[in-house]
Amino acid sequence: MDRSVTSSPGLSTGAAVLIALDWGTSSLRGFLMDGSARILAERSSAQGIQNLPQPGAAGFEAALTGLCGDWLDAHPTLPVVAGGMVGSAQGWVEAPYVATPADAAVLADRSAQVAMAAGRRVLIAPGVLHDPAGGIPDVMRGEEIQIAGALAEDASWACNACIAMPGTHSKWVRVADGRIASFSTYMTGELFAVLKTHSLLGRLMPAGVDAKPEDGEEAFAIGLRTAQSAGPGDLPHQLFATRTLGLTKRLPPEALAHYLSGLLIGHELRSGLTLLAEMPAGTPLLLIGDPGLCHRYTCGLAAFGITPTAQLGNTAPRGLFQFAASAGVLPPPSANSSSIKSTP
Amino acid sequence: MDRSVTSSPGLSTGAAVLIALDWGTSSLRGFLMDGSARILAERSSAQGIQNLPQPGAAGFEAALTGLCGDWLDAHPTLPVVAGGMVGSAQGWVEAPYVATPADAAVLADRSAQVAMAAGRRVLIAPGVLHDPAGGIPDVMRGEEIQIAGALAEDASWACNACIAMPGTHSKWVRVADGRIASFSTYMTGELFAVLKTHSLLGRLMPAGVDAKPEDGEEAFAIGLRTAQSAGPGDLPHQLFATRTLGLTKRLPPEALAHYLSGLLIGHELRSGLTLLAEMPAGTPLLLIGDPGLCHRYTCGLAAFGITPTAQLGNTAPRGLFQFAASAGVLPPPSANSSSIKSTP
Repeated sequence: MDRSVTSSPGLSTGAAVLIALDWGTSSLRGFLMDGSARILAERSSAQGIQNLPQPGAAGFEAALTGLCGDWLDAHPTLPVVAGGMVGSAQGWVEAPYVATPADAAVLADRSAQVAMAAGRRVLIAPGVLHDPAGGIPDVMRGEEIQIAGALAEDASWACNACIAMPGTHSKWVRVADGRIASFSTYMTGELFAVLKTHSLLGRLMPAGVDAKPEDGEEAFAIGLRTAQSAGPGDLPHQLFATRTLGLTKRLPPEALAHYLSGLLIGHELRSGLTLLAEMPAGTPLLLIGDPGLCHRYTCGLAAFGITPTAQLGNTAPRGLFQFAASAGVLPPPSANSSSIKSTP
Repeated sequence: MDRSVTSSPGLSTGAAVLIALDWGTSSLRGFLMDGSARILAERSSAQGIQNLPQPGAAGFEAALTGLCGDWLDAHPTLPVVAGGMVGSAQGWVEAPYVATPADAAVLADRSAQVAMAAGRRVLIAPGVLHDPAGGIPDVMRGEEIQIAGALAEDASWACNACIAMPGTHSKWVRVADGRIASFSTYMTGELFAVLKTHSLLGRLMPAGVDAKPEDGEEAFAIGLRTAQSAGPGDLPHQLFATRTLGLTKRLPPEALAHYLSGLLIGHELRSGLTLLAEMPAGTPLLLIGDPGLCHRYTCGLAAFGITPTAQLGNTAPRGLFQFAASAGVLPPPSANSSSIKSTP
């Protein structure tokens, strides 16, 4: 089976208390965790919910036992929890969206569960719906777990925080009183990919050739500046410059994708930073996501005069631990399970 | 050969003075015109510049003689003019962009020409480049001919006009002193098509099923209102509601495309109308394009409290006539060649 196995022996001192699954559309990640929320071992496979070995519930069970069967056998009483698209309407069992405000306790209270053939239960976290009066609804599924993990990293963040999660569908999240109070999704990553691959804008971009670093940075900066100058409704016009900057030889063909990236990230930042501006002064801004993408966002934020308070890596395991703790399936905390701050 | 032939015998009284070609990416349209800019006959084929019967110059000549060979034979001395993508770098011969401000005289002055095998010349109009200092460049090719035709319809429009041309790549054009002074392209139509076909947003839209008219209108109106409430950078977020309005059953699946259409058109109108607002009070707003699409824009404009001054159909033949006249290839105007106003 196609899986990668990583152990972290240097951190692995406690006894296993939890099997945690981050189960998305395109991948399944398993974590064996101790009572201090430390990762004893982790594994991943490409068997996301759209790529199961067989259809239906049997496919989910086969993917899980294929990746973590030895953990399940070695620890027959350990709780198993899961978050992500596994709880969607196309998942193992649907855990319907819970409304904002939401925290790990709400997720636990509204979790769904499914029983494996051998009777082993899997507790599945719901997604979150934000449906403001007079506005348009928004949803997340998977990010709520990452947020729960991030807030567990530093108690001060739980009071008030603005969390930006760059990605295919970026999220900007307002945290108040330890709960997800509101959020907005931005289709930034998908727009970039779809426009590059399927629109006229990709025609001038050479496949497989990237810009010289200085050309890429300059093009990205032009995209950012263009976004900063935008009035409402200007994006569909400014997108077209991805073509005209090439036609007029203002940018080399291999730098055009960087303009598009800077433009789209700049628009997301314009809108997302209004959320931050509405929050109390001094509210921390946390970045969660792929390090390379977070670097681009950090560069973009700098153009707006903003420095993120912290950049976090994968906070999903810690979030799944919080979810399990809130659900009451973990043993009482040990003496050394206090907050572990992963960023200075 | 696949072509449609239309004659307009009721309008066809003068002798032919011009063979005019509107030659775009996906179609070739030929018009036989008299000295009063009336269409004596018209024909079209799917042999746009990306669909020629053979590569290179021979392909252009074959497409032209296939569609209009009998006209060329019957009128061996008639001038032949062409506009559109036929003058692009991928065209029969490149007619490089001319800078704003531009009118039919500038187009004629900077036209290119190509000789057919039999020695017959074809005069080809250039496109137009708008390259504002400190801004992003923009280009048009084909629309400049339609604009020349529109301005010939009513002398008052040539002074000052705002011209909106809905389409795959919509144009908003500021006309001052009879010339194209500035313009902006909006990728509205392509964004709609690409997002519907290739993004997550299309997943919830049933193929081949349209909404009930009242559902479609309501969804379109929600999209417009959402655009009206947008701050800078909000579009990538508001796009996602195409999905969430379906997930939350706020809109039926078959109405989601109407929300997307209203949202994208609304954003274009937000931005385009700032151009109109910067022009002198009373500046006419002209709509040029496909009637069904212009109807959607008229509905959208109504939400902004704006009524277009006129909606024009295909003004390209008249524009090609103006281009030919400016190039000095037509006989002196006859007594009845005065302005023909097609809209009251």
